[in-house]
Amino acid sequence: MRLDLGNLDDHARGCAILGTGGGGDTYASVLAARTALAEYGPVEVADVGALADDALILPVAGWGAPTVGIEKLASGEEGVTLVRMAERWFGRPVEALMIGEIGGGNGVDPVGWAARLGLPLVDADGMGRAFPEGDMAAMHVAGVAAAPAFFADERGNGVAATPEDAAWLERIARALVVAFGGSVAGADHVMDAATARRATVLGSVTLATAIGAALAADGIEGVLGQTGGVRLLAGTVTDVERRTTGGFARGTVTVEGTGEDAGRRVVVHVQNENLLAMEDDRPLAIVPDLITICDEGSAEAIPTERIRYGQRVVVLAIPCAPIWRTDAGLRVAGPERFGFAHPYRPLEELAR
Amino acid sequence: MRLDLGNLDDHARGCAILGTGGGGDTYASVLAARTALAEYGPVEVADVGALADDALILPVAGWGAPTVGIEKLASGEEGVTLVRMAERWFGRPVEALMIGEIGGGNGVDPVGWAARLGLPLVDADGMGRAFPEGDMAAMHVAGVAAAPAFFADERGNGVAATPEDAAWLERIARALVVAFGGSVAGADHVMDAATARRATVLGSVTLATAIGAALAADGIEGVLGQTGGVRLLAGTVTDVERRTTGGFARGTVTVEGTGEDAGRRVVVHVQNENLLAMEDDRPLAIVPDLITICDEGSAEAIPTERIRYGQRVVVLAIPCAPIWRTDAGLRVAGPERFGFAHPYRPLEELAR
Repeated sequence: MRLDLGNLDDHARGCAILGTGGGGDTYASVLAARTALAEYGPVEVADVGALADDALILPVAGWGAPTVGIEKLASGEEGVTLVRMAERWFGRPVEALMIGEIGGGNGVDPVGWAARLGLPLVDADGMGRAFPEGDMAAMHVAGVAAAPAFFADERGNGVAATPEDAAWLERIARALVVAFGGSVAGADHVMDAATARRATVLGSVTLATAIGAALAADGIEGVLGQTGGVRLLAGTVTDVERRTTGGFARGTVTVEGTGEDAGRRVVVHVQNENLLAMEDDRPLAIVPDLITICDEGSAEAIPTERIRYGQRVVVLAIPCAPIWRTDAGLRVAGPERFGFAHPYRPLEELAR
Repeated sequence: MRLDLGNLDDHARGCAILGTGGGGDTYASVLAARTALAEYGPVEVADVGALADDALILPVAGWGAPTVGIEKLASGEEGVTLVRMAERWFGRPVEALMIGEIGGGNGVDPVGWAARLGLPLVDADGMGRAFPEGDMAAMHVAGVAAAPAFFADERGNGVAATPEDAAWLERIARALVVAFGGSVAGADHVMDAATARRATVLGSVTLATAIGAALAADGIEGVLGQTGGVRLLAGTVTDVERRTTGGFARGTVTVEGTGEDAGRRVVVHVQNENLLAMEDDRPLAIVPDLITICDEGSAEAIPTERIRYGQRVVVLAIPCAPIWRTDAGLRVAGPERFGFAHPYRPLEELAR
């Protein structure tokens, strides 16, 4: 498979669905990736199994509050700076980029960077969705070290860090987010292809593109068909509570049902991503399962920062990648990690 | 010359004088350096001319508000982490440390690090004093690139940065200062010995130690003799205005004359370092010349963070290294850079 001007929009639509509201708006990312694809040509999506065991793979993603990405545009140079820093550090070439986080704009930016660099993109990512913190990655669950981590901004500033642990990585990254004006591009959990085969969510890129194509063809039903997801509620956004603190966008979104859902009311709790959907005191879906709020008309996912009072929406839930339902996965990215009192239960159970 | 347990205190006294109130308190730095010298043995102070042209020299210093250093102790590992990062980056060994800033604790910490690493310390520094910002270095005036820059904390966290320019280096460093709890060890303007011969303040280490020995032997008169400095005023501290903002300790110190200076009143303006001494509306000494406030009894320099109401002090001014009196030097570290309306005039002129 290749990503090119013909399927970039499908890919971006799928990334927005998997973003569960986070990962950054895809709008600016699509513009940047389209420019790069037009100038440098298509990007090869490589099966991890097709790379040499020792091929160096650089997982890349943005850090920061998604509300900032709309106004602070990337230059396309971030990916080049990240690769330059990593190659200097490791003393050998990077052979493929990997999408660190497939959700939202983070799933799209690396397409443009890969085009610009002439590098393939592996068909995998670190999450199978978007998560608000950098250690919520399959690589972390599999014991791959986060360090060294690399950071780059759109001006050419580059940083390499060897933090003592994941908490220090987070702290350093957040400091750089603030220093660089609200967002920064990063690479961490750098690994070889042999490691990537067991330590990533495989098939994410082809899945995202397939979801987007199904959405374009069949709307919400297409998305549910591709993902095994369920429709939680269709209704109107009646309240949005939002604040940007400590580099995160936090808040709640209240949706009151319409049509056959009239009389129902669902509150979605957000920290960059939609993490918990509650109906009265009953959870309908809970992190790490995916909760996505789609526009009722277009079926496109609405990112956290674009949710507005009065929007007609459909709230979907999608089963997460299997890694997140293991004990190790739940310790890293389960409800407790986010301070929720509700224990994790798969949405297939909750939806019954 | 060697630095050892016998002359460490002289060296520290001299660094405090050259610190002009800044560079960090020497107290904790002396404890750490003494421990390292006792365990690892003396440190060779090498003439830059004695090193091979291509020998890699790592200038090291602390970043942060000096008020923090008193409570946040270094572990001694900072220097090791900095060298490890730099050697990884350059792919060759670091052959000597250099004191980035001879003033205050920053002039003492590298002694312990060099002992621990078994590396010589070159007889030079980047400032010949202390300055509040990292680009106020002779290397910067000489056109040596600040990047790559390296940072380390006492826990083992390491960072390498390739900022676009000096302003971005400052911004990244300040972000790390905040992330790491108020201070961080850094290395920048890394260069070879051939470059160091023309781009540093030579002889700083032997000068600092000589000042300290003269102070121990002859008090204030010894310091003036070693430095060519002048006594501005002896008196009592009658007002201290101090605030820590944006990582800097800013404020003013008012000294009212006693004895033969009775009836006089000098206000010293501070940003980490003492930058301007005013008597009424007349400057007595102005940055980049050195202004040091000494205890009247012991003649030891009092760092900014230890100045208190009621102290009996002597205010000294000392001519800066010649590089700072050039047009290029004044552009980097002259009065205008600190927002003072007074143009620079050498203290020898002002004192007339």
